[in-house]
Amino acid sequence: MVDVERPRLGQHEVLVKVKVTSVCGTDYHIYRWDEWAQTHIKPPKVIGHEFAGEVVEISPDASSCKVGDVVAAESHIGCGTCYQCRTGNSHICEKLAILGVDVDGSFAEYVKIPEKNAWPIPKEVPLETASILEPLGNAVHAAFATDLGGNHVAIFGCGPVGLSAVALVHMSGATSVTAIDVNDYRLRLAAKMGASRTINTAEMDVVKEIHSDTEGRGAGVVLEMSGNERAIRDAFRSVRNGGTVILFGLPSKEVQLNLADDIIFKEAHVLGIVGREIFKTWYKMEDILKSHKIDLTPLITHRMSLNQLEEAMKIMGSGNCGKIVMSP
Amino acid sequence: MVDVERPRLGQHEVLVKVKVTSVCGTDYHIYRWDEWAQTHIKPPKVIGHEFAGEVVEISPDASSCKVGDVVAAESHIGCGTCYQCRTGNSHICEKLAILGVDVDGSFAEYVKIPEKNAWPIPKEVPLETASILEPLGNAVHAAFATDLGGNHVAIFGCGPVGLSAVALVHMSGATSVTAIDVNDYRLRLAAKMGASRTINTAEMDVVKEIHSDTEGRGAGVVLEMSGNERAIRDAFRSVRNGGTVILFGLPSKEVQLNLADDIIFKEAHVLGIVGREIFKTWYKMEDILKSHKIDLTPLITHRMSLNQLEEAMKIMGSGNCGKIVMSP
Amino acid sequence: MVDVERPRLGQHEVLVKVKVTSVCGTDYHIYRWDEWAQTHIKPPKVIGHEFAGEVVEISPDASSCKVGDVVAAESHIGCGTCYQCRTGNSHICEKLAILGVDVDGSFAEYVKIPEKNAWPIPKEVPLETASILEPLGNAVHAAFATDLGGNHVAIFGCGPVGLSAVALVHMSGATSVTAIDVNDYRLRLAAKMGASRTINTAEMDVVKEIHSDTEGRGAGVVLEMSGNERAIRDAFRSVRNGGTVILFGLPSKEVQLNLADDIIFKEAHVLGIVGREIFKTWYKMEDILKSHKIDLTPLITHRMSLNQLEEAMKIMGSGNCGKIVMSP
Amino acid sequence: MVDVERPRLGQHEVLVKVKVTSVCGTDYHIYRWDEWAQTHIKPPKVIGHEFAGEVVEISPDASSCKVGDVVAAESHIGCGTCYQCRTGNSHICEKLAILGVDVDGSFAEYVKIPEKNAWPIPKEVPLETASILEPLGNAVHAAFATDLGGNHVAIFGCGPVGLSAVALVHMSGATSVTAIDVNDYRLRLAAKMGASRTINTAEMDVVKEIHSDTEGRGAGVVLEMSGNERAIRDAFRSVRNGGTVILFGLPSKEVQLNLADDIIFKEAHVLGIVGREIFKTWYKMEDILKSHKIDLTPLITHRMSLNQLEEAMKIMGSGNCGKIVMSP
Repeated sequence: MVDVERPRLGQHEVLVKVKVTSVCGTDYHIYRWDEWAQTHIKPPKVIGHEFAGEVVEISPDASSCKVGDVVAAESHIGCGTCYQCRTGNSHICEKLAILGVDVDGSFAEYVKIPEKNAWPIPKEVPLETASILEPLGNAVHAAFATDLGGNHVAIFGCGPVGLSAVALVHMSGATSVTAIDVNDYRLRLAAKMGASRTINTAEMDVVKEIHSDTEGRGAGVVLEMSGNERAIRDAFRSVRNGGTVILFGLPSKEVQLNLADDIIFKEAHVLGIVGREIFKTWYKMEDILKSHKIDLTPLITHRMSLNQLEEAMKIMGSGNCGKIVMSP
Repeated sequence: MVDVERPRLGQHEVLVKVKVTSVCGTDYHIYRWDEWAQTHIKPPKVIGHEFAGEVVEISPDASSCKVGDVVAAESHIGCGTCYQCRTGNSHICEKLAILGVDVDGSFAEYVKIPEKNAWPIPKEVPLETASILEPLGNAVHAAFATDLGGNHVAIFGCGPVGLSAVALVHMSGATSVTAIDVNDYRLRLAAKMGASRTINTAEMDVVKEIHSDTEGRGAGVVLEMSGNERAIRDAFRSVRNGGTVILFGLPSKEVQLNLADDIIFKEAHVLGIVGREIFKTWYKMEDILKSHKIDLTPLITHRMSLNQLEEAMKIMGSGNCGKIVMSP
Repeated sequence: MVDVERPRLGQHEVLVKVKVTSVCGTDYHIYRWDEWAQTHIKPPKVIGHEFAGEVVEISPDASSCKVGDVVAAESHIGCGTCYQCRTGNSHICEKLAILGVDVDGSFAEYVKIPEKNAWPIPKEVPLETASILEPLGNAVHAAFATDLGGNHVAIFGCGPVGLSAVALVHMSGATSVTAIDVNDYRLRLAAKMGASRTINTAEMDVVKEIHSDTEGRGAGVVLEMSGNERAIRDAFRSVRNGGTVILFGLPSKEVQLNLADDIIFKEAHVLGIVGREIFKTWYKMEDILKSHKIDLTPLITHRMSLNQLEEAMKIMGSGNCGKIVMSP
Repeated sequence: MVDVERPRLGQHEVLVKVKVTSVCGTDYHIYRWDEWAQTHIKPPKVIGHEFAGEVVEISPDASSCKVGDVVAAESHIGCGTCYQCRTGNSHICEKLAILGVDVDGSFAEYVKIPEKNAWPIPKEVPLETASILEPLGNAVHAAFATDLGGNHVAIFGCGPVGLSAVALVHMSGATSVTAIDVNDYRLRLAAKMGASRTINTAEMDVVKEIHSDTEGRGAGVVLEMSGNERAIRDAFRSVRNGGTVILFGLPSKEVQLNLADDIIFKEAHVLGIVGREIFKTWYKMEDILKSHKIDLTPLITHRMSLNQLEEAMKIMGSGNCGKIVMSP
């Protein structure tokens, strides 16, 4: 914990007083200072990018929000001028900057963001929930990237994004939702979020089980949200011919795949998913929250003070948590 | 009621002893002998096309089902040789024959069908439910023809297919399901099937209400299942810019539309839907029924003997019914 | 012709000195002061919205182009804050303003536009071509809205957008391109742009001809670019089962359609198309021009001075023209 | 060369006298008796699956073709009863049998095929062309699996399917077609088939070149038709954010991929493609051939007698050939 200056606003920026901020796997990578962190982060940097807070200052040219608004933030900051930004895909901007990674983030008293990245929070959404819209948005973007209705769906990886996806897929017409992980704590959370079956891959052959649950066909849709190599390989082996694999979890190194049997002969569709569609995902997310069709209560398992960041990171390391939210 | 000969089987055909059969709007058109019926039906013909029964005989070359199987039937009989049939779209075959319309149907003791049109019924599906898979399939085909997840959905027309669609859309991630009709009996059924709001258009301005419910944007998806001219016009006026209108209800005559304002400036997508995808729809339907994600109980409102067909038709005429099922 | 003040720039705006401007059907509606014009235009207004010119001044906060740049303009000005604008669809903005309709346009010495609506013109694109990117963009947006490859395509209406579509569809894998109009002058242009067949509907039954050309199936894709009621009805009757109808031409009043036979039983897809995708369409258009895969030479049939606007409008009225371009 | 008995027909089968047959990479694998062949082929088997011939006998229950018809064959024989076959995807049947691999093929005087696999050849299509419809169909299926119009396209691998894809993509609205191989003979053929640029990866850094040709964005669509590991890795690195990679070439072993950078952060779409859509691909292919929009002349580089199979295989091994066609 260090003292940093209150950020000064540039053009079209707003200053937010952080009310609740939550811990992401990315933050844990940075905390551990692993290989990924060493190559992607230039310290000193304020990390953290999932938060809700109150707008306390706006630049003179900002018009989309006003002092006093409660907002969450889209953490992907597009350059606004590249092909992706100019064709409605700024979440995959060619020169993307990410809050808490490339610019100072939310594990602080104040955070400044471009006005275009602020998302006003409606009154019916609690602050805690507002602080996790960013990862919930990952799940919304991933889950709605393909047809779920009438499909058997398997979800590999039950971290907060995977758990959110379980709830979303459960409410979205899937005829079964199989949640897969190696951690029983997380699998119990998955059951609470709506999984019709949970499989601990340390104990069972998940590929065999999924085929046996689907009359030998395989899952119509597989969401890979772990980034684990073995899970990724199993994900491809679990999808049925003509089915869809959504890749969201980031593997830390290259992965070996049997493209012939697992993608080509199957005519599998594979979609990489990152971030959130700006702002299609946010509109959908807000409408879903207002509809009360998902219950995120089980997802937030720990509440702490921002001073306890060290402890939060240790809990993250154990895997025995859903989302950890912190107040400054 | 007349005595007809037990049908003789041709190549690749099976004979089914009807156990339960249900009444469709088409049957009611034929009963009333209206203009459509006079131009489409060449009597004498056994009508009825929604049923479940037991296979009692198969032609020597039939191999896909056997005597004793309980089956429902896909009522659209493709020619097997046209462009549509050879590209996986036999439900829109260029020379389509329909059971109970073009060939003898199921309001009888026995009905013969091509073996390829028989769909074996799993044990967990009750016979009554099996008899209404054909109209449920219409709803599955219509509802899953576009993205529902995170969308506001409006359904015009609460006959059995519209009511089934209410249940399907409700379970498929829609953030609201508005059911619209002029009949309060049916609107009460719609509420039981999962509608988040019902609107009687005799009492309210549905277009205004839908916009007011969606922050002025309009519904993301509109299912038109009434065939009524006013409803069709309101359906197009209720969809948001960039939204989708599914047309399923058959208007009895031409309809006047404001294409400029209601389709072109809005960039609306309009999809005509008929029948069921053979057999993609059937697989989805069976998996949904097995998942118990929808409850069709409220849908079947009347149970009768086939002898009471006359009375069934009168009830149909009143509109105060969901599905009427009959046993021979 | 009147003297108007040189426009003063607001925030994020640029001033363009018009070099070439071309006449659109919309301008002709306004010139005739027909019903549509009377209800949509509040005079005095400078009309015209298709042009290319040189940036001569930029507002202090503008950064996306600089003085001296040659630009064309996207004429659809989104509000930037509605659902459509925030989800990448500002061309169907809920509060859309159109250049030359809602705000002063390009039949003038200078025109001011938001900097975000300026599209820099690469050197290899001639000024004349640059002045018609706006209508060419309509054709790109419409033609690429569905799969063309391996399909028979029919195009109703051979005005400049229809003619551009002929060229685009011809170069995009369609196995035939049938161009339809009532004006032989325009049909001759269509043949030059790449139509494999032209049909004058005053002389032949177009629905019958299209079916006869496609082994009775109908066209896989139909582009309706005339706005004429009879053409619209024929367009729907010409598409094959499961085919796609793109509606772009704006009918001046409501149109009566046989929804049952022409959309529902056919499972036709109908897509309303307006404007251009911002800026996906512009990127595609620029790449197509650079690839020299289409030749727009035959499209520009008249070159005039802006003083001759009156005469240009008369030629427009006769229908015996492709695009008329004018220099101030 | 051995004498085999003239095949006896089973139900719904036809006997075809082979007129022209062509050599596929699969045949070469079998000829070399490599690992793939050893695990997939149970000898003795007549190999070969690309051919055109005349129907000389039909089983009594066959009705879709008659003696004297000239036909080509779809080589994928679906079981007709699995999920894939019953949902219009028999080319990815769960129990697929392939002509010349699982059942006797066309390097013979006669070959028997199911009647449903026979595709009648129109008179305007020469026999030689008819004999290569099977691989041409691969290219049609692969190329039309995504949007080509207005996109930069890169094709890795210039064997006969890759070369056919070059011609198809060239005629389908792509703004550039870059053909990539290590063999200059094949790259020269690619130029003849319509490639706008050819790159020999032995000489240049293809990833760098493609980015440089596309203003740094990468190719919108990449077709991988080589099966070579390095090419596959380069294919993923060459696609732009949000672009599509079509995987068709079969790698002989597992391939290591950087999923994070090359699929997930890019939000790439990956589609496995195998065989041909039955019969959507065949209809499109026939219409394309009739339209004369592609010229396959350069593709057929060698004509031989079936007795010279040994020599044909040697030429295949050298890579210095397009398609080799043989007559019995």
